[in-house]
Amino acid sequence: MANQIDENNSQEDSLLLGIDGGGTKCKAVLMDQNNNILGIGMSGPGNPIYGLEIAQKSIVESAALALKNASEKHEDLRKVGLNNITAGIGLAGVNVPQMYKLMTKWKSPFKSKYLTTDLFIACLGAHNGNDGAVMICGTGSCGFSYVNGSSKVVGSHGFPQGDKCSGAWFGLKAVEAVLLSLDKMAKTTSITHHLLKSLNVDSADGIVEKVASKTSSTFAGLAHTVFCATKEGDEVALSILEEGAKYINDMAKLLNQTSPPSISFIGGMAKSITPFLDKSLINKLRPPLYPPEVGAVLYARQQIAATRILDNTNENLK
Amino acid sequence: MANQIDENNSQEDSLLLGIDGGGTKCKAVLMDQNNNILGIGMSGPGNPIYGLEIAQKSIVESAALALKNASEKHEDLRKVGLNNITAGIGLAGVNVPQMYKLMTKWKSPFKSKYLTTDLFIACLGAHNGNDGAVMICGTGSCGFSYVNGSSKVVGSHGFPQGDKCSGAWFGLKAVEAVLLSLDKMAKTTSITHHLLKSLNVDSADGIVEKVASKTSSTFAGLAHTVFCATKEGDEVALSILEEGAKYINDMAKLLNQTSPPSISFIGGMAKSITPFLDKSLINKLRPPLYPPEVGAVLYARQQIAATRILDNTNENLK
Repeated sequence: MANQIDENNSQEDSLLLGIDGGGTKCKAVLMDQNNNILGIGMSGPGNPIYGLEIAQKSIVESAALALKNASEKHEDLRKVGLNNITAGIGLAGVNVPQMYKLMTKWKSPFKSKYLTTDLFIACLGAHNGNDGAVMICGTGSCGFSYVNGSSKVVGSHGFPQGDKCSGAWFGLKAVEAVLLSLDKMAKTTSITHHLLKSLNVDSADGIVEKVASKTSSTFAGLAHTVFCATKEGDEVALSILEEGAKYINDMAKLLNQTSPPSISFIGGMAKSITPFLDKSLINKLRPPLYPPEVGAVLYARQQIAATRILDNTNENLK
Repeated sequence: MANQIDENNSQEDSLLLGIDGGGTKCKAVLMDQNNNILGIGMSGPGNPIYGLEIAQKSIVESAALALKNASEKHEDLRKVGLNNITAGIGLAGVNVPQMYKLMTKWKSPFKSKYLTTDLFIACLGAHNGNDGAVMICGTGSCGFSYVNGSSKVVGSHGFPQGDKCSGAWFGLKAVEAVLLSLDKMAKTTSITHHLLKSLNVDSADGIVEKVASKTSSTFAGLAHTVFCATKEGDEVALSILEEGAKYINDMAKLLNQTSPPSISFIGGMAKSITPFLDKSLINKLRPPLYPPEVGAVLYARQQIAATRILDNTNENLK
């Protein structure tokens, strides 16, 4: 889709910022009309649910860093400001209508901005702007497909009530299982030792002190204990992993109902989970072509093109 | 234990305040030397983990209300202030060493204070100061036994990582199951309708908006959906309930290893869960004799008596 619109781009639209704002960090990329990456930038949290002003600050910071990074190699960009550049912005949290409204009202420093969800830009990036589906397992988890102009979201309900098979979910399942084993309500297996070592504690109280009232990021930081223990044949860890993998298998079936031409499995946990998925699914998975921040650039291009097509149509109707 | 010490009480120790401080409320009771309840009081949160000053304020407020309540019926108490009365205080959260330290350092308005955990006073209350065990299922869950001067705690690890079979746990399991059913990753059963109705929403997004980032109390407020659905034969709800009941059965086995003369099942969820426990356990359960705040009075009496016995011993050694 995005590829088709390149020829319509004017010079002023040729430079685009793509921004991917998640719960822990915000990534920005500056690209030219040929989708060459000119510069990249990264800053703090970009999910407005955890702080509107912080998210806006992170977006601007990451964009400024990407522009600065690009200027170091391209002298002609030193006179360009954020106010000369259009940005495509994909954010976690803007699936909540109130957050979307607040972010669209934001007077950003960009020439103009196109806002959508982090899921949509991840999908566009993975399939270079074409139709397709993505399953994302990072700190959280979700599925998304975009086919023939229709989108479908699976999961994405947050922690601890949703986000099965996410890093946070693996961490929570590990903690739950190990607390039961330390209470002598389940047998002790190698995951107990991995978790205690990872947290540098020696008791259930020690674990609780480290994880009580903590966010999903803290739990996601413990996900590796499940995978380490599974490698050693730990049946407790394996059953957690199998439960998680079943969720992703089911998610893929739901996404495949929309007939996406391609499906990708992305996010920090994807590589570790993949070997435990159904073989038929593994064979169908395609590596993502570009990261979400590039998807945000492709989104902006699509929106600019759509506006032009609409303008042209109106022109023809006159 | 507490009964044995009554005869040693001097007049000034005859009036005692008992305080049970939990995460959502603080209950106080004023008792005379014959363990007659003279007055009761209730105020806000008493768990210092969620705010030290709030907990201290709640303790004083509930105590003042109990004294005021007693003064309305007993004129002679109108001249008595909190500074004339010793308090037994059982608090959630003081199992964390730092919280215990901070609360013992507190310059309370009481004549003197004896501090322990909410679990200990619940156990003392349930068994009228005698040895025994309790299993508690309210917003959280835990097991506790006190036999021959030794105590044992099972669970009590907090939400969401622990507290299986608690109100919060039932609520979370209900939300998890219903989100899966609304995503068409599990079949829809009556618990879906109960939960949507309870939250007054009609979609997964609606549920998430109501529970995201909420505390254990919010989830505990949804526990009833599991029990309502189970009554209608809902197999999803029943499997949640069976998993919870298994945890309590296992907890009882661990507590019984300490040979408690008696075991009670208490807290807001106990009555609903009991029919699903092992029959052999149900037959062993004894109704609690007194509530935790009365247990706090019994605790104070025990501590006063222990100090006296120590004083007498020292006297004899001179």
